[in-house]
Amino acid sequence: MSNTFGNIFKITTYGESHGKAVGVIIDGCPAGCAIDEDFIQREMMKRRPGQSAITTSRDEEDRVEIISGVFNGMTLGSPIHLMILNKDQRSEDYEKNRDVFRPSHADYTYQEKYGIRDYRGGGRSSARETACRVAAGAIAKLLLNKIGIEINGFVSKVGVMKLNKSYESLDLSKTYENAIRCPDADMASKFINYIEEVKSKGDSVGGIVTCVIKHIPVGCGEPIYNKFQASLANAMLSINAVHGFEYGSGFAGTDLLGSEHNDAFIQTPEGIRTATNHSGGIQGGITNGMDVYFNVAFKPTSTISLPQNTINQQGETIVLENIGRHDPCVLPRAVPVVEAMAAIVAIDMILANKLATWN
Amino acid sequence: MSNTFGNIFKITTYGESHGKAVGVIIDGCPAGCAIDEDFIQREMMKRRPGQSAITTSRDEEDRVEIISGVFNGMTLGSPIHLMILNKDQRSEDYEKNRDVFRPSHADYTYQEKYGIRDYRGGGRSSARETACRVAAGAIAKLLLNKIGIEINGFVSKVGVMKLNKSYESLDLSKTYENAIRCPDADMASKFINYIEEVKSKGDSVGGIVTCVIKHIPVGCGEPIYNKFQASLANAMLSINAVHGFEYGSGFAGTDLLGSEHNDAFIQTPEGIRTATNHSGGIQGGITNGMDVYFNVAFKPTSTISLPQNTINQQGETIVLENIGRHDPCVLPRAVPVVEAMAAIVAIDMILANKLATWN
Amino acid sequence: MSNTFGNIFKITTYGESHGKAVGVIIDGCPAGCAIDEDFIQREMMKRRPGQSAITTSRDEEDRVEIISGVFNGMTLGSPIHLMILNKDQRSEDYEKNRDVFRPSHADYTYQEKYGIRDYRGGGRSSARETACRVAAGAIAKLLLNKIGIEINGFVSKVGVMKLNKSYESLDLSKTYENAIRCPDADMASKFINYIEEVKSKGDSVGGIVTCVIKHIPVGCGEPIYNKFQASLANAMLSINAVHGFEYGSGFAGTDLLGSEHNDAFIQTPEGIRTATNHSGGIQGGITNGMDVYFNVAFKPTSTISLPQNTINQQGETIVLENIGRHDPCVLPRAVPVVEAMAAIVAIDMILANKLATWN
Amino acid sequence: MSNTFGNIFKITTYGESHGKAVGVIIDGCPAGCAIDEDFIQREMMKRRPGQSAITTSRDEEDRVEIISGVFNGMTLGSPIHLMILNKDQRSEDYEKNRDVFRPSHADYTYQEKYGIRDYRGGGRSSARETACRVAAGAIAKLLLNKIGIEINGFVSKVGVMKLNKSYESLDLSKTYENAIRCPDADMASKFINYIEEVKSKGDSVGGIVTCVIKHIPVGCGEPIYNKFQASLANAMLSINAVHGFEYGSGFAGTDLLGSEHNDAFIQTPEGIRTATNHSGGIQGGITNGMDVYFNVAFKPTSTISLPQNTINQQGETIVLENIGRHDPCVLPRAVPVVEAMAAIVAIDMILANKLATWN
Repeated sequence: MSNTFGNIFKITTYGESHGKAVGVIIDGCPAGCAIDEDFIQREMMKRRPGQSAITTSRDEEDRVEIISGVFNGMTLGSPIHLMILNKDQRSEDYEKNRDVFRPSHADYTYQEKYGIRDYRGGGRSSARETACRVAAGAIAKLLLNKIGIEINGFVSKVGVMKLNKSYESLDLSKTYENAIRCPDADMASKFINYIEEVKSKGDSVGGIVTCVIKHIPVGCGEPIYNKFQASLANAMLSINAVHGFEYGSGFAGTDLLGSEHNDAFIQTPEGIRTATNHSGGIQGGITNGMDVYFNVAFKPTSTISLPQNTINQQGETIVLENIGRHDPCVLPRAVPVVEAMAAIVAIDMILANKLATWN
Repeated sequence: MSNTFGNIFKITTYGESHGKAVGVIIDGCPAGCAIDEDFIQREMMKRRPGQSAITTSRDEEDRVEIISGVFNGMTLGSPIHLMILNKDQRSEDYEKNRDVFRPSHADYTYQEKYGIRDYRGGGRSSARETACRVAAGAIAKLLLNKIGIEINGFVSKVGVMKLNKSYESLDLSKTYENAIRCPDADMASKFINYIEEVKSKGDSVGGIVTCVIKHIPVGCGEPIYNKFQASLANAMLSINAVHGFEYGSGFAGTDLLGSEHNDAFIQTPEGIRTATNHSGGIQGGITNGMDVYFNVAFKPTSTISLPQNTINQQGETIVLENIGRHDPCVLPRAVPVVEAMAAIVAIDMILANKLATWN
Repeated sequence: MSNTFGNIFKITTYGESHGKAVGVIIDGCPAGCAIDEDFIQREMMKRRPGQSAITTSRDEEDRVEIISGVFNGMTLGSPIHLMILNKDQRSEDYEKNRDVFRPSHADYTYQEKYGIRDYRGGGRSSARETACRVAAGAIAKLLLNKIGIEINGFVSKVGVMKLNKSYESLDLSKTYENAIRCPDADMASKFINYIEEVKSKGDSVGGIVTCVIKHIPVGCGEPIYNKFQASLANAMLSINAVHGFEYGSGFAGTDLLGSEHNDAFIQTPEGIRTATNHSGGIQGGITNGMDVYFNVAFKPTSTISLPQNTINQQGETIVLENIGRHDPCVLPRAVPVVEAMAAIVAIDMILANKLATWN
Repeated sequence: MSNTFGNIFKITTYGESHGKAVGVIIDGCPAGCAIDEDFIQREMMKRRPGQSAITTSRDEEDRVEIISGVFNGMTLGSPIHLMILNKDQRSEDYEKNRDVFRPSHADYTYQEKYGIRDYRGGGRSSARETACRVAAGAIAKLLLNKIGIEINGFVSKVGVMKLNKSYESLDLSKTYENAIRCPDADMASKFINYIEEVKSKGDSVGGIVTCVIKHIPVGCGEPIYNKFQASLANAMLSINAVHGFEYGSGFAGTDLLGSEHNDAFIQTPEGIRTATNHSGGIQGGITNGMDVYFNVAFKPTSTISLPQNTINQQGETIVLENIGRHDPCVLPRAVPVVEAMAAIVAIDMILANKLATWN
């Protein structure tokens, strides 16, 4: 169970990596939203495999078909089903290792939990599921854009290399201009060179995606168990390979004293703001109108070409090598996934906020 | 809405800081579990205000009354209601600042979201709500202990001071022997001295709680949206003052190559294990039988005695000073809260795992 | 699990019949609703045991204490906890029959499901739980009344005696003027006499409660699985002793042809209406602005004074007699419970409808 | 929202009548269940349009395609997506009446709720959605059959004609031998003749489906808000055209005295049973091991060929005639839908019961 995320704008995904298709049902999208199919497809292209030299060579068109819920370009209020056919699977690559428990993959845990698993391309545990999130996130973004909310993710760290600039100092419109999805062109080149070097050695590398939500209204987020930051953390840690989440001042904020960390409220011509934003735009679980920003840590891709010791389903020690196609670094394709999940959290909270008061 | 956490072992909390009581309903606790009231109360004492010189002086007995769901010391399978009366409120302390938006508190966001708020002691936004979590967590621990699962949290960083030891090298049974809840006695003294120094200046400090779940069986956690780590992140980010979560290798893991980070499977006399544990005991969202360990970052307490600039509900700029009683550092009282939420996640996942297969 | 009803205005009840208290948490009540405690208490009095000669002699004050969620007479948006202490339990009445499986009661099924049960007064299975529903329903009614929605239940059948008048021909304001809660004074007398006669023989009787929801706006109810009528049916069948539900033309409507049953739309000065209302105010699961009306069938009370054959927990055949206090007919006390559940469904659907469109 | 039914074995349906497809995601089906695709297809054929002279002439193959969740004929524990393409839509039939509010249909209420609707074939409000229920119900039946549970529905009343036999006296294996789905051959002929007569006049007729669940184990159903009967009622009232539900003694049971209605417990060689079964196999919301049986009332089909007065979206009074293809009586095609929903409730409750106790 639990293939559903969200409370009001609810997404339910299905599909195995080498099955017929993957897809998502959005239940709870309000009626009367204009749906731009080209926009959805452009979002998909940001996550598409085979998009550059630093991503996997699996070649999927990732065309989203709208099966239900949209009529004459408008949402009906009924479930929106977005389906993406699987085309370039090459399941034969996985036959020889069908009994192997690949290190740091989900083969062993799935086998133990379910007593059965689809070993082809990782089955349900594959990051192919995130294509569905990007598709659903595109619908969420269409709604958010209508009310001026922008969500921008970018790569801020690859392996030991880090972009030491705050998001305010960057031109986030340039993020998708390079293969690594970093708005700083110099750093982007360094990141790409580094990934190519790692790739050439048959190894992989991780890093950090930073994301900013701008112009989200005051009042979004629930006070106790659906705090805005808790839902973001839940969303981000549900993405394959993620090992950490921090928002606002994050882990570094633990170095500060309260007198340094507190954000003073101030009056401005645009209304109430805070002088600093260590709170990351959220206080008591509820947005305060400032930017919401956060970091997401991705471990290095588990699939590598180097030989590795492991065991198989029969409990025999073996050496795993010559595995299937894969990404040397998940980060460039993770950026749109982080954005999509942020968009889904944001729209869910905005809708929930309609229920806060009675009048 | 959303005062409920969990899918099967569901907790719903209620209560304002200065209302009549706070409490929690646990719905989904199986029938036939022996309930040790003394154990529950000992857990409460770990979080109780006024327990030491480095916590708030608010003096609450925090006695848990079992109102329903337990009969002759056994759970009935019906909802367990645990109630904790509020006794030492001193609401008058808050009258003078009833219109003030305290910096980095939830006053402003609650007012904007709801158009009304209980200004006394922060109302629903107060960390007093976490008493309910500890009470519910005690029930969860009673169930977990029966099957050998142990959950141990401890303070590993206070402000800029950090305990540079791995949890494996520590004797976690010593955690509650000192006021700061750190199993390393030397570091504990340093932490306490530092907090006292900060307190004497009217300031506050944050830090990190590390937590370990031992002996959790293989197979707990759902593959996509209730991944074990996502539920932990959701739980931890729902705790007041938390700004970050990482598990296994965490943010530091982004420095490693895949060949360094991957955990090789090995056969041992006790069954399948991994040679290293960068995965933090979780692969594909599902526990693999190794220790689950994670860090939780807490910002410095928002309430400080130093004068601060802010605005009030009328939009006037004011200076806030001489505020109510508070903790100079939330960490010692946060440790049992982190443990409680981890216990609630663990029992929820263990129960959910009963549904994975059909036989 | 599953002590919660509702999707947005969610109620969670707790408590055993002879425990310390019963109560309810309402999560999802919007902020800013004025709460009239006297109104709540008057609603409770309609369900109170010991109110007349035709109800059980258990004497409970049923005073509702508001523990949380209301501040200065207004809802805060946080959970509203309403608690009702148990006072006149007489658990000793149940000691002698603690091992008996009472016919048509839940003793056997609880024992089999949970392996344990609170035998005192039926424990959790007692209709005492419905006191919580009336309390929560009173809050729902306060919200509904503000927007002109009225909910009126009344007894329309007792045993074989039936009130053969349509609800439109009755003055529903007179329902609570007599002990049986029937707006037709003549029929009320007959019902009461009949119940007294049955009671004098140590027997019990069932019947039907009819209920009408007036002035509910167009658009409430979800199209597929939370159809307005499905939620009503779910609510009503969750009430102790209920064996049937029908709305609009109901079972009798199966006698009609489509040409007789269809409700023609007409234009009126007040807007679109239907010429007839066999649809019971609901089409496609969604209210159409006409009255919603329905019938609820209650079986005769399972507790009777006459000797009955049954078996005990040891599997021995025994004769059960001289049991505890009970209602010879649940109907008079069921009317406010039916109204309360209808109110909870209505407010839940009205709130959900805020999410239907995007603008 | 709310296109999901069930708590553990959760189904989410999507699709409009004249869109590309309808389908269902089952989330929560345990891993390791053998899936017989032929069985699923045979179930679909029972509901298929165009199956006989007394059903609509819309000709749909209704072939179910399994898109995910099944691998080598076994369930994986991941979401099962069943898709059914729409083929014989004839949307042009609906163009001329696109602005008409058809009497007793959902056109008006959808338009008011959402401000938009797919007028082709009723869009989302069409009973075509029930094809998804039959597909999901087939999966549920496969699981139930493994543990010996049988679910049999049949038509027991058509218009004013009623089958006056108890289900125990019928051979339920003969139900699908005739077009009306009634196990009594004589009555079946009368029913069919009557429907043909009604059809020839351009009118429609309703009736009752009776259903029996045999061999369900003791202990299924939740005590308060997911009572077995409440979930059944919820399921049945969510089916298009249903106006009533009763189980066990039902509405007729209100005629009995408690001494007549109570079911005495007795010891039998097979274990504890009840001498009578007015309780319909459920006590306190929980199954007691006896047969669960219930009736579902269906109104006459709203679509008729006779001219009808109504209004259109512009508020003009018009006469509606010459409408699209339709069923003169929904009952024969409703029988498998009732069975499917009963199967989904039963499997959901059986899975939930795994969580009742701790050991």
